[in-house]
Amino acid sequence: MAKAHFGSDNVSGIAPEILDAIVRANQGGVDSYGGDALTDGLNARFGELFETEVSVLPVGTGSIANDLAISFITPPWGAVYCHHDAHIMVDEANGPEFFSGGAKLADLPAEHGRLDPATVHTAATAFDPTDIHHPMRAALSITQATEWGTLYSVDQVKALGAVARELDLVFHMDGARFANAVAALGCTPAELTWKAGVDVLSFGATKNGCMAVEALIVFGKKREQFGTLQRLHKRAGQLYSKMRFFSAQLEAYLENDRWIQWADHANRQAGRLAEGLTALDGISLQHPCEANELFLTMPVAVYDAMDAAGFGLYPISPNGDGSGSIRLVTSFNTDPADVDRLLEVAGAV
Amino acid sequence: MAKAHFGSDNVSGIAPEILDAIVRANQGGVDSYGGDALTDGLNARFGELFETEVSVLPVGTGSIANDLAISFITPPWGAVYCHHDAHIMVDEANGPEFFSGGAKLADLPAEHGRLDPATVHTAATAFDPTDIHHPMRAALSITQATEWGTLYSVDQVKALGAVARELDLVFHMDGARFANAVAALGCTPAELTWKAGVDVLSFGATKNGCMAVEALIVFGKKREQFGTLQRLHKRAGQLYSKMRFFSAQLEAYLENDRWIQWADHANRQAGRLAEGLTALDGISLQHPCEANELFLTMPVAVYDAMDAAGFGLYPISPNGDGSGSIRLVTSFNTDPADVDRLLEVAGAV
Amino acid sequence: MAKAHFGSDNVSGIAPEILDAIVRANQGGVDSYGGDALTDGLNARFGELFETEVSVLPVGTGSIANDLAISFITPPWGAVYCHHDAHIMVDEANGPEFFSGGAKLADLPAEHGRLDPATVHTAATAFDPTDIHHPMRAALSITQATEWGTLYSVDQVKALGAVARELDLVFHMDGARFANAVAALGCTPAELTWKAGVDVLSFGATKNGCMAVEALIVFGKKREQFGTLQRLHKRAGQLYSKMRFFSAQLEAYLENDRWIQWADHANRQAGRLAEGLTALDGISLQHPCEANELFLTMPVAVYDAMDAAGFGLYPISPNGDGSGSIRLVTSFNTDPADVDRLLEVAGAV
Amino acid sequence: MAKAHFGSDNVSGIAPEILDAIVRANQGGVDSYGGDALTDGLNARFGELFETEVSVLPVGTGSIANDLAISFITPPWGAVYCHHDAHIMVDEANGPEFFSGGAKLADLPAEHGRLDPATVHTAATAFDPTDIHHPMRAALSITQATEWGTLYSVDQVKALGAVARELDLVFHMDGARFANAVAALGCTPAELTWKAGVDVLSFGATKNGCMAVEALIVFGKKREQFGTLQRLHKRAGQLYSKMRFFSAQLEAYLENDRWIQWADHANRQAGRLAEGLTALDGISLQHPCEANELFLTMPVAVYDAMDAAGFGLYPISPNGDGSGSIRLVTSFNTDPADVDRLLEVAGAV
Repeated sequence: MAKAHFGSDNVSGIAPEILDAIVRANQGGVDSYGGDALTDGLNARFGELFETEVSVLPVGTGSIANDLAISFITPPWGAVYCHHDAHIMVDEANGPEFFSGGAKLADLPAEHGRLDPATVHTAATAFDPTDIHHPMRAALSITQATEWGTLYSVDQVKALGAVARELDLVFHMDGARFANAVAALGCTPAELTWKAGVDVLSFGATKNGCMAVEALIVFGKKREQFGTLQRLHKRAGQLYSKMRFFSAQLEAYLENDRWIQWADHANRQAGRLAEGLTALDGISLQHPCEANELFLTMPVAVYDAMDAAGFGLYPISPNGDGSGSIRLVTSFNTDPADVDRLLEVAGAV
Repeated sequence: MAKAHFGSDNVSGIAPEILDAIVRANQGGVDSYGGDALTDGLNARFGELFETEVSVLPVGTGSIANDLAISFITPPWGAVYCHHDAHIMVDEANGPEFFSGGAKLADLPAEHGRLDPATVHTAATAFDPTDIHHPMRAALSITQATEWGTLYSVDQVKALGAVARELDLVFHMDGARFANAVAALGCTPAELTWKAGVDVLSFGATKNGCMAVEALIVFGKKREQFGTLQRLHKRAGQLYSKMRFFSAQLEAYLENDRWIQWADHANRQAGRLAEGLTALDGISLQHPCEANELFLTMPVAVYDAMDAAGFGLYPISPNGDGSGSIRLVTSFNTDPADVDRLLEVAGAV
Repeated sequence: MAKAHFGSDNVSGIAPEILDAIVRANQGGVDSYGGDALTDGLNARFGELFETEVSVLPVGTGSIANDLAISFITPPWGAVYCHHDAHIMVDEANGPEFFSGGAKLADLPAEHGRLDPATVHTAATAFDPTDIHHPMRAALSITQATEWGTLYSVDQVKALGAVARELDLVFHMDGARFANAVAALGCTPAELTWKAGVDVLSFGATKNGCMAVEALIVFGKKREQFGTLQRLHKRAGQLYSKMRFFSAQLEAYLENDRWIQWADHANRQAGRLAEGLTALDGISLQHPCEANELFLTMPVAVYDAMDAAGFGLYPISPNGDGSGSIRLVTSFNTDPADVDRLLEVAGAV
Repeated sequence: MAKAHFGSDNVSGIAPEILDAIVRANQGGVDSYGGDALTDGLNARFGELFETEVSVLPVGTGSIANDLAISFITPPWGAVYCHHDAHIMVDEANGPEFFSGGAKLADLPAEHGRLDPATVHTAATAFDPTDIHHPMRAALSITQATEWGTLYSVDQVKALGAVARELDLVFHMDGARFANAVAALGCTPAELTWKAGVDVLSFGATKNGCMAVEALIVFGKKREQFGTLQRLHKRAGQLYSKMRFFSAQLEAYLENDRWIQWADHANRQAGRLAEGLTALDGISLQHPCEANELFLTMPVAVYDAMDAAGFGLYPISPNGDGSGSIRLVTSFNTDPADVDRLLEVAGAV
């Protein structure tokens, strides 16, 4: 029997609609390396979604999406401002530094994972950008939804975009959970990105029902350098020979607003978990639960009970006082009944 | 209607057995980033196939398989000997140089795409390897089946392996069409690789019926450094979060000797094309057809007829005398009736 | 007339004894690229100084000394812990990241420029080093004398060395002003380095009277990988064809304890400046003056007077309240009469 | 007593006029990192020499001059066409590949070390430069004087410049022995470089009497990107803190046409050696002697006699028939009497 797993949204499988799209794309011989109709249609499809002309490249993982994005927005002697716990900072095995030829990731503190415009401004103006001794300020990268399950509001993104524009920083958004952010904020994709100053977006899809695909999306003036991104993409081994099967996932993902609906479902189940768990003694949220992730302090006994009941969970980090820190994540296919069951188990301790 | 495409084996789709395996793997929540049972079983599965202990990593494209292999077998100041037309030399957008931190690809002439042991020996001993001014000899890379559709016999691989051992070169085989080589030679995978001195194999699967997966296979003593390859692999963004769907492809590919049977089918259809076409006036093979590729000189008029008949073909390179150079490729799902039809069209010119 | 310059020790010229050594080395034809007797003798000469076997390479600048040291002590996926204002962090135009193939410089806060062992321990144990997602802890780098003109005591270095040993971090010391540290602490070079756990030292000489030379010094077990450092060194264009003129500088620098005496002179003049200036109204040290650098808060009016009197100074950073921040540096050839004169000018405001 | 060394021009020391210039520059405190008057004057001084506006950066070695030049003229996915024995190909420990982030050095055959325009054209048009799979043609690099002691005439450089312009290749000249070429050809520096299409010149000085300095010289439109070269230069650790002592060498080198006169002297002594030696039985030139290098076949017995007579020589490569291959090089300070003596010793065998 399928296991109810709350450890990560990466543990979830492929949505049936996505699998169907792969099967449908499996007809006859078509040109390889992106020379197919599905790939050809991506720019228009995403352009419609974002209400502006965009340039799009599909990639296989969120890691490489970020690696390529970073290498696209900074010279090797540049500095990219990001938060201390950003994926690009701590989870990519130094991929951003490698792919960019040695750019500096300058990590900044960020309450609940949200960078503050003033903090960015101070860091980015610490050095004269024309002084060749120092890392040259080059880019700003934020994660939306953040690494701690919170969100930047549209206005907060805009405020960062204003700093980026003032200081001539290319503005990147790591949107591994972009769908969850859009669903929760109720804004348009355009409002949350290029209208707020974002130049490059890592548009996540894998965590939200796809098999393995993300889209690199370039907006506005930065599109003039899209040819460079295509070279970086090919050189990184991301030009899949049977690209149609990756583009098909993206196409089906966008169709009928599935991406929003699936993210909305995940967000709602996370909200139910948050509400139910924090009503229990000794359980509290470390960060507001605004998307599909919960970062909790809970009694180890509660964790043990959930574990014993067969739920898939990542290990708890004990705090030494009988409590511990644990992340729970919901996904596009989280069964509400499993949420009920988990709350029941937790409540029974 | 599905188009009969002879331009490349990359234009073919996914074999039904592979798609089934992806569907079957889509059950419940399982640990991500390779922490699933299918991925866990790969070392054993390939170990059985190769009759020895091996260390395996799945990757998404042939390009990155080669990039990672090269970066694994040479220091940045090393030289990797390969043939002038090797994929690693001309088709990876300098990925091998990039991923290795600047290693030198030293290209050598090779009749019909087959490197000669004496040529390798001469090139690799041109410089004293302890003289730090010069590229340090480090590795040998061959393509099997070759870029020109020919094969190295087991003895030819062995002879190159002997040179590699003598000169302390790590020996890599780019096996994007390894299946076609094994099927055609009738040898065991072991005989064609580690028993002949091969240390690292890029084991192709995508061109032969998979959706998007290749396996990096490390043999023998080189396995002691497998931890380094795992870091390179993660850093390259190749650690897919839903890795199970890539491992599932490999598992189904090996099952019931499918990989050999599919390659054998492709080889046979290529053989039929070669026999039929070279019987026609003005058509000749530029290289022996030993696997699933044909490199032909043919009248442009014949090409035009095939094109007009609706076959998928890559552009012909005109020779200026009414003839041109053209590659035809068959694949795991080439319909023999399409071969008949193509021969008929060509014969009617 | 020569200008009395207190902006940097880099503004000072070449000590006559060093110039003499260059002239003396200019006899006849000798083997190039380090094949000369002077270069050949460096290992023995530094071995004597450090009371142990060492492996030495001369380089042309402090920047490249640090770049090569960092690339020698970490894999590309490693993390190097350093202080927030370390030269390797902010003054090398991302050279350490570039030369190391993308290693992470993890900057830590450090009071008065001195890293605290507990801070290092916490940062270096934040991630499991076997988890390939995260930067792998690899090395520790400190600056001695520090970027803020302070010193680590021998015991403080030892305490950091103990953390490095416990966590398997290679321990690097950026000793651009190593001479000033040894002179001030009155310890032996051995006590301050390998006996305290240091594996690799950037041994500065340029700031203290040489024309352009620093020595990379490798101690203990790390010497087993010295061949790799020689490749990195050659590849960085640091194998000077007429190497004898660089080795001659180092040889003359060590002779008769000149390096210590010159540093001692600089330290004493800095001490006199510190004593004299802080006796004046409104002038205070931002950090203790323990070597040859002073970081001062002073009235802008005082600065202006010194500037008007013709002293070479770097620009002051105004604090907005009539005071500003300014660095003064003394060197091997600072004339005590110029110190007197500067104090006089400052005192007269 | 000084040894007469004919192994390399790198074995020679520093010309007295250059040493004097270093001594003269050693006055007082001046701004560091190139903020001195001598460095400031280089653009004008070289502009005068080349009869056009140029942008100049001093570096410490010929290796790094080439490494930086190559990284300046090609993107990482580019191809740089050069001759098979070019220094950038075989003598820089893969520095050009490393500094360029993985660019491809595409080596071409070249009789007597001179690339042929048709060969370059064929190689550079083998691939469609807009096809992102292949290395993108980017640059052409030649060595003048060549690696085999021959010269390109002004017209030959022009013909290569025309190919470069036609195919949009940046044109680099490795002029480690540029002075010898200008002296031998009797042309102007302008005629041999930018007037013939050269964009970037590695202007050698070390082999011809300096201690350690070369100049990177950028011409014409490529000067618009000079800011990038400055970042590359700083990042490579080439921004010497006491830069004045490097700029002083260049300034003195150009003064009174010394650079030409010294090279002319070396060329003449090489010519005398060539004439005298080839008059002897069994001695012949492998390449025309057109600058200051001789590549000879000679009886090993002759070599042994020269060696026994105390001349500094690099090892001979025996041909197995009693003869061997040997390089002799003259320099700015080769004593004509030593040439006489060597001819006498050789003639007496």
